[in-house]
Amino acid sequence: MAKGRPIVTLLTDFGAADGYVAAMKGVMLTIRPDLTIVDVSHQIPPGSIAAGAFVLNQVVDYFPPGTVHLAVVDPGVGTDRNILAIRYAGQTIVTPDNGLISLLDARLQMEAIVLVRNADFFVRDRVGATFDGRDVMAPVAVALAGGDDIHHLGPPPDAYTLRELPQPTWDETALTGAVLYIDRFGNCITNIGRDSIGQCLPRTEAIGVWVGQKGIGPLQVAFAHVDEGEALALLNSMDLLEIAVNAGRADEALSLSVGDEVSVSYADQ
Amino acid sequence: MAKGRPIVTLLTDFGAADGYVAAMKGVMLTIRPDLTIVDVSHQIPPGSIAAGAFVLNQVVDYFPPGTVHLAVVDPGVGTDRNILAIRYAGQTIVTPDNGLISLLDARLQMEAIVLVRNADFFVRDRVGATFDGRDVMAPVAVALAGGDDIHHLGPPPDAYTLRELPQPTWDETALTGAVLYIDRFGNCITNIGRDSIGQCLPRTEAIGVWVGQKGIGPLQVAFAHVDEGEALALLNSMDLLEIAVNAGRADEALSLSVGDEVSVSYADQ
Amino acid sequence: MAKGRPIVTLLTDFGAADGYVAAMKGVMLTIRPDLTIVDVSHQIPPGSIAAGAFVLNQVVDYFPPGTVHLAVVDPGVGTDRNILAIRYAGQTIVTPDNGLISLLDARLQMEAIVLVRNADFFVRDRVGATFDGRDVMAPVAVALAGGDDIHHLGPPPDAYTLRELPQPTWDETALTGAVLYIDRFGNCITNIGRDSIGQCLPRTEAIGVWVGQKGIGPLQVAFAHVDEGEALALLNSMDLLEIAVNAGRADEALSLSVGDEVSVSYADQ
Repeated sequence: MAKGRPIVTLLTDFGAADGYVAAMKGVMLTIRPDLTIVDVSHQIPPGSIAAGAFVLNQVVDYFPPGTVHLAVVDPGVGTDRNILAIRYAGQTIVTPDNGLISLLDARLQMEAIVLVRNADFFVRDRVGATFDGRDVMAPVAVALAGGDDIHHLGPPPDAYTLRELPQPTWDETALTGAVLYIDRFGNCITNIGRDSIGQCLPRTEAIGVWVGQKGIGPLQVAFAHVDEGEALALLNSMDLLEIAVNAGRADEALSLSVGDEVSVSYADQ
Repeated sequence: MAKGRPIVTLLTDFGAADGYVAAMKGVMLTIRPDLTIVDVSHQIPPGSIAAGAFVLNQVVDYFPPGTVHLAVVDPGVGTDRNILAIRYAGQTIVTPDNGLISLLDARLQMEAIVLVRNADFFVRDRVGATFDGRDVMAPVAVALAGGDDIHHLGPPPDAYTLRELPQPTWDETALTGAVLYIDRFGNCITNIGRDSIGQCLPRTEAIGVWVGQKGIGPLQVAFAHVDEGEALALLNSMDLLEIAVNAGRADEALSLSVGDEVSVSYADQ
Repeated sequence: MAKGRPIVTLLTDFGAADGYVAAMKGVMLTIRPDLTIVDVSHQIPPGSIAAGAFVLNQVVDYFPPGTVHLAVVDPGVGTDRNILAIRYAGQTIVTPDNGLISLLDARLQMEAIVLVRNADFFVRDRVGATFDGRDVMAPVAVALAGGDDIHHLGPPPDAYTLRELPQPTWDETALTGAVLYIDRFGNCITNIGRDSIGQCLPRTEAIGVWVGQKGIGPLQVAFAHVDEGEALALLNSMDLLEIAVNAGRADEALSLSVGDEVSVSYADQ
């Protein structure tokens, strides 16, 4: 599974200013100097499992089999919460057991799951109990990326944590979902996928999108297909319905926050 | 041209929080696991072609021949705007056709230019129309960095986009230019180069610099050659006239913005 | 010392928006295309030697022997301040002589120190005098990472700069120190180490921590061992006493700044 140079990606809420991320990289490069490390994000809002789960789900499909994703948003570090290694689609996630894999798990077939328990894989001289990312998960990720057997880490858990993911609802007239994530551009990404729209509202050319009571118009293909400053809706690069403003911020222009309601229905009804 | 490990640099306005940059990297590493990827910047202000063009021009000279620079500030994504691959000085820029190469083009000899049209190079299952950086430009950049012939991508364009670059003017007394870019330190970098100063005002030791009506004094060599909190002018690491404040921010202290006028003349006149 | 792929880390106050960091990386990859470059931080507050020294000290122990750390917080660039190459524990720091190595130097045995003077190692066509990171320190770092002899760079200095590091004091009742650094989470890291606590207050289970007059309670093991929003003290991943708030920011909740006093004593006294 892990031929050629191993790849580990990093997704954390550690920020870019402090030395936490570099300490993890140093641990990994000490073990495997030929490792390729990819930063997914270190700007997850502190402790936000929801944002971490979204970004993890956004990137996994684009990495090759054998990649290990180290996902460390870990407000429970140092408690008795478990650490997991989970395999989907030939890739492995190493993560505290707190729901970071919820969106992936809803979409992909799990191939293996174990508790990370075998201290032979950990950094030998652990310092403190607040940095399992560096002392436990980083060395485990490198071992897995290098081809170590996931089952050497520990036994399967009795259970693992998934966040409840609100699903869009269909009331025979409108498909109603919610804003899942707001990106750097202020684009508001919802939990309404292309598939749900296709199933509920097959005449896509007749569709209208609403934010609360405000009509956003039909599905567009590109931001610049409306005037600058105008709101629009489109199916984005994850095939999710997204509310945007051309050359502007939809979150500010429409006062949208994560959890706010967005709906789709025939514009002519 | 591309011996050894290929290098692709990334310049975007995608920010560091979301998964957009990592998705591009995953696409590239899937194709070439031995690729070296260098982040130039992901903090270009959203949609700012001017800032993107400045930063691209700031770094190209320091990379080896064969390097491919992926420059994705792309407010027109999904419209019929073109994507270009352009070669200068043995390096290639892959970019939407919107003027990101304007400063480079004014300075370097173009060696080749083509439209990126050949879908054989693209990601096979494109999702949405809003992420050509991931689906089109990333795989094209890897192919070029690996030595693929630029002419396999498509034919030359009939024309391509350049931004108008205001040039400094000389009125026999003063050389007048403008602030091009403000950096992290609040340093205000102008479009007045060492060469123009040398041509118009050969007695460099007698030079004075003005921001509007305010005299900034002679050309200094180092920030710390004036007192802390004092403004100064110097020829910076790009050989451009820069207005700075030692241990402070010139943009704030002098209320300077991009486009504001800066002039150079003999101090004794 | 430098077998396999050489590693250079970068610690700067250059930020992530401009092209400064990428220009340094281009210089280094031009010399050694197989170089592994690790970003430690580019978000050191502009000119902050104290923060740079802290973060450098936080990461060095986790990198393998032979690693070169390029630490460029350099408000004196272009003046006659020296540039140093210093070796501790088989790793080398290349840095302006301004105290960035103060915390390392207090803790590790110095193995070598030289002035960086030999221009054969520098970029040939230096532009301006304000970017020694790119023109001097980057090429020197690559050379050292590749195994060049540190003594080829120049002679030892007569002296070098160390910042005064306030030490915790023990008055037979309380061990009193100060906040050294505040991290991304608002955690306030002090200069009181596990060792000092152990020496002065051997009954660790009886210890209480105070911020000014406010009692923070005993030493905890994990953030989540107190309620959300509650303050706590723990020995962190650097074995330093840290004041935190579970799922919150201690700096804001307790109005703590760098330099503020923190003390440890027996809670029952």
